[in-house]
Amino acid sequence: MNPYTGRIDRFRASMAERGWHAALLTPSGDMEYVTGIRRRRPSATENHMHGDWLGGVLVTSDEAIAVAPHLARRHFEEQLRDTPWVDGMIPIDEGEALDPFARTLFADRVPSGGILALPRKAMVQTAVELARLCDFEFRCTSEILGPMRAVKDAGEIRAMEAAAAVADHAFSEVVPALRPGMTELDIKFLVERALYAAGAEGTSFVTGIMIRGEGCDGPLEGVSCKEGHRLEPGRVLAFDFGAVVDGYASDFGRTVFIGEPDAELLRIHALIVQAQAEGMRALVPGTSTREVDAHARRVIEDAGYGEAFFHRLGHGIGIDVHEAPFLAPGSDGTVKENMCFTVEPSVLIPDRCFIRTEDVVRVTPEGGVSLNHTPTDPIII
Amino acid sequence: MNPYTGRIDRFRASMAERGWHAALLTPSGDMEYVTGIRRRRPSATENHMHGDWLGGVLVTSDEAIAVAPHLARRHFEEQLRDTPWVDGMIPIDEGEALDPFARTLFADRVPSGGILALPRKAMVQTAVELARLCDFEFRCTSEILGPMRAVKDAGEIRAMEAAAAVADHAFSEVVPALRPGMTELDIKFLVERALYAAGAEGTSFVTGIMIRGEGCDGPLEGVSCKEGHRLEPGRVLAFDFGAVVDGYASDFGRTVFIGEPDAELLRIHALIVQAQAEGMRALVPGTSTREVDAHARRVIEDAGYGEAFFHRLGHGIGIDVHEAPFLAPGSDGTVKENMCFTVEPSVLIPDRCFIRTEDVVRVTPEGGVSLNHTPTDPIII
Repeated sequence: MNPYTGRIDRFRASMAERGWHAALLTPSGDMEYVTGIRRRRPSATENHMHGDWLGGVLVTSDEAIAVAPHLARRHFEEQLRDTPWVDGMIPIDEGEALDPFARTLFADRVPSGGILALPRKAMVQTAVELARLCDFEFRCTSEILGPMRAVKDAGEIRAMEAAAAVADHAFSEVVPALRPGMTELDIKFLVERALYAAGAEGTSFVTGIMIRGEGCDGPLEGVSCKEGHRLEPGRVLAFDFGAVVDGYASDFGRTVFIGEPDAELLRIHALIVQAQAEGMRALVPGTSTREVDAHARRVIEDAGYGEAFFHRLGHGIGIDVHEAPFLAPGSDGTVKENMCFTVEPSVLIPDRCFIRTEDVVRVTPEGGVSLNHTPTDPIII
Repeated sequence: MNPYTGRIDRFRASMAERGWHAALLTPSGDMEYVTGIRRRRPSATENHMHGDWLGGVLVTSDEAIAVAPHLARRHFEEQLRDTPWVDGMIPIDEGEALDPFARTLFADRVPSGGILALPRKAMVQTAVELARLCDFEFRCTSEILGPMRAVKDAGEIRAMEAAAAVADHAFSEVVPALRPGMTELDIKFLVERALYAAGAEGTSFVTGIMIRGEGCDGPLEGVSCKEGHRLEPGRVLAFDFGAVVDGYASDFGRTVFIGEPDAELLRIHALIVQAQAEGMRALVPGTSTREVDAHARRVIEDAGYGEAFFHRLGHGIGIDVHEAPFLAPGSDGTVKENMCFTVEPSVLIPDRCFIRTEDVVRVTPEGGVSLNHTPTDPIII
């Protein structure tokens, strides 16, 4: 029982309702969700392939066909071995003239002036070139696939549990390996090696290792990955990392105190844990996403740290680390059973601490249930 | 003497010639090149920020203003301290209604029905939403910035040399550390740790560690980063990695033989080195990029390995690892002085070997000069 045939059918039905003629699922979570064809890992700086703006899987009412730039051809061929619901592959040769290729590709598939949908992070070049060549209008596939992807089926929840377990296991290996003097970069390598050893296919986002304390300021995530601050007594170390397992992402956070923390740090940690618990309790089907955020945020605000909790409470998570809907002020989603969210309150005080705990949480009729099993007690080394 | 004021002026002049009203430089090499504002490292799976499709630097004829989604605000604030040629920042609050925000943002800046340029890898959602809200047409900034970025100035060449030196240095540290039994994943971590130790701000693309030999087949780059093949006598290990230093990328490759290679492997290695030398010799201003590819390719074809050299000879490189123009069959670029290219011929024989040598090469009137200084002799351990 593959889930893809059913997903393609539902996607086609929704496209037909909207009057969309086709979707070009460029490499993305949307392509993975609908077709089972995995994307390759992204390049840290931009890469280029001849015809990359045409690469992906073109889904029409009666066909799903891969379009493979020469440099992606082996990848698509390998993926297509296990995806018989995709009808075939059209290669783009190195140096092939792309204007006639594109015109021919769409000639019998999408009428001139028709509507083509693209994943929201598809290259804008795709729209620029196809507006010029075929006079298409464009929509974002997330309009249909965002809500479809938000509610996870049983197979997806198993993969999410596996991804969470890899994060838990890696963390359990990393904490005993921490040593005074280690830098943020040392710990990043320790975490990533532990994730792969535990079964990760890759990281799901940029591993965040944040040591804070007196004189340890700086951005939480920037352009550079220098050695960073060192583990020293009195400092506070926050982890934020995740793995991809069976195509699904985890996102995990805990805070470690180096030496006995003072009373305020412990109080903030307890607040964070309490806010997380309140957020999880609020994750009941039918609740609005902004209420969930507000419910957890109130705990931190009431204690006087509202300004220090500078980001949203959490985000949907699945094939991508950030998926709709979002647990955020001003958000307009509604919580449904078997949605998965991060719940990740934090307090950031410059030159003092960044304290956060983060789990991936599945929505059940009784509220949120964590897929992670690492305790949330303060960790002191 | 900052280079950005001049670049912004030239970019504006070219936009005016084309009748473009503005460019929204979303986080990209184009944003870095024109404004000096650095993008953050990309997430391995997709991330999301409220209003991310509006984030970047909006450049009009008389203004350059950063537009910062809430979760990118600290990053932009930090970057803007050193970029006084950017006129200011407009923040997008968490939960802010984006349709009225976008309409107001563009109201006095770009007329309805006007032309807005975007980097070719900008999110297609930006074009979809702004077509709906403002009736804009879209172009790709690469039309102007591709040729501007291709020819490097003296400061850029210094950064390219520094990035190449970091790759050379890391390689010199890695080779003596190779041990029998190490996996591809072990070596990947070894390489990346060495890159950071040598001064990298980050990797420039997905580090490629490819062990080949009898029974060692598989894709050269896929979705997963498993342990991979092991270093064992008789096998061949190809490296493909690079660093970002001062905002510029390197891209480096060498091949290491585990134990004495047979005569054919040595012959292939010599061919590769000869093809690379021919490619470098052909990198004379005025030559067409396809001729450079053909010139090097002929060496490998004449020896009967043409089919095994499955990719283009090289690509432009600078702020991004892949930049126009490309040394490829069917390409239509022209080589100019102070362009930088990779020259990276290879031979892939399934179950036997992947042999490649790769340098970053600067174009001079006398031909290509390598920015790397690692010898190209076969390395046998």
